[in-house]
Amino acid sequence: MAKKLNLLMFSGEYDKAMAGLILANAARDIEVEVTMFFAFWGLFLVRDPEKMTLEDKTIYEKLMDVITPKGPQQLPLSRMNFSGLGRMMLEEMMEDNNAPKLIHFLKGARKKNIKFYACKLSVEIMGFKPEEFLPEVEIIDASAYLKDALESDMQLFI
Amino acid sequence: MAKKLNLLMFSGEYDKAMAGLILANAARDIEVEVTMFFAFWGLFLVRDPEKMTLEDKTIYEKLMDVITPKGPQQLPLSRMNFSGLGRMMLEEMMEDNNAPKLIHFLKGARKKNIKFYACKLSVEIMGFKPEEFLPEVEIIDASAYLKDALESDMQLFI
Amino acid sequence: MAKKLNLLMFSGEYDKAMAGLILANAARDIEVEVTMFFAFWGLFLVRDPEKMTLEDKTIYEKLMDVITPKGPQQLPLSRMNFSGLGRMMLEEMMEDNNAPKLIHFLKGARKKNIKFYACKLSVEIMGFKPEEFLPEVEIIDASAYLKDALESDMQLFI
Repeated sequence: MAKKLNLLMFSGEYDKAMAGLILANAARDIEVEVTMFFAFWGLFLVRDPEKMTLEDKTIYEKLMDVITPKGPQQLPLSRMNFSGLGRMMLEEMMEDNNAPKLIHFLKGARKKNIKFYACKLSVEIMGFKPEEFLPEVEIIDASAYLKDALESDMQLFI
Repeated sequence: MAKKLNLLMFSGEYDKAMAGLILANAARDIEVEVTMFFAFWGLFLVRDPEKMTLEDKTIYEKLMDVITPKGPQQLPLSRMNFSGLGRMMLEEMMEDNNAPKLIHFLKGARKKNIKFYACKLSVEIMGFKPEEFLPEVEIIDASAYLKDALESDMQLFI
Repeated sequence: MAKKLNLLMFSGEYDKAMAGLILANAARDIEVEVTMFFAFWGLFLVRDPEKMTLEDKTIYEKLMDVITPKGPQQLPLSRMNFSGLGRMMLEEMMEDNNAPKLIHFLKGARKKNIKFYACKLSVEIMGFKPEEFLPEVEIIDASAYLKDALESDMQLFI
């Protein structure tokens, strides 16, 4: 029976998103089943930059939209971000080494039959609409996440 | 036999504390056993704001008390805290959605037969007195934590 | 059969490095097998301060070397670092309690037959040379890490 990996993507920072997606892709390559559950800041990784909307949102929800990253490419580093300079530098270093960018790891994950879940409570609190997410994303609650995670061989909080 | 969830609460930030407590409460609701082990900054979540004391503390320990949060409601966000403005905004958004506040999730956890442990070494280094914690909190060392965690079905470092 | 603990050391902050090394040491003391996999910022914990080099590095790699910590003792705190003042204060508090410093926990771990791995992709992107690391460190890829982690009884992302 296939091993299972469950990742709770909480932080929504560029480098941690990279770490999670590299593990998810590598796991699929050795035929491990993968679930990624996006909560809180992690939701910014699976919002579709083309589909963001300010309609039907409260003033706080609109403000949240304005001050937060527009898509994966704008996520900050967890350290030494320097208003985005650090992330640009990291991306240059990745390019020098022919390493794929975050967006490519995300594309890879989307093609590899990984389960993408978004945390229901986080979605509601942040005021995101279901249609703002990538089409693969299914919205589930904490208890559905826990059931999946408890049956996995490995769980990480990233 | 009941499944077991073990959470190492390290960060002591408002949003991560929320994540841990939401999982802990949801786990109890599906009859999963839960241990929460509070270490380092995580200890700020289980100090009783009514029982903090400066007595018998070194100058550093007093300073630590003065510059750190007084109780769960003062914990900062891990991102976009903006000196507390971000946290206030998040709380408003939670209220708009009738989502319980951190303090309610903590109250829930305390009623649901969750094991609360504090890390002995962290308590000593930070100079906290055992009586400064919520009464449920038991102080144990890293090896007692490990034994519990290794027998759990799932462990997260939050 | 011995239980196994697998730690993914991502953050490279002083307090989180302490947490990981305290767990690793405590686990060995109760005969649990331990793997530590260092990735991204976590690599700064296992670079040998005596062996850092700027030779054969691109301009970005050199810049990275200049702006990042020179060895474990210079790692920042994840919170309240205050340009290093917070870390110094924490170290004083640890000394007051006769608690070993980070460097001692690292030395302990190196003597206790813990497996030290560095993430191949992170090493390449950051432009580190294999000879810049502590001699115990072996460089492996994400899929080798996953195989080890999936066979462990417990995994944490720190």
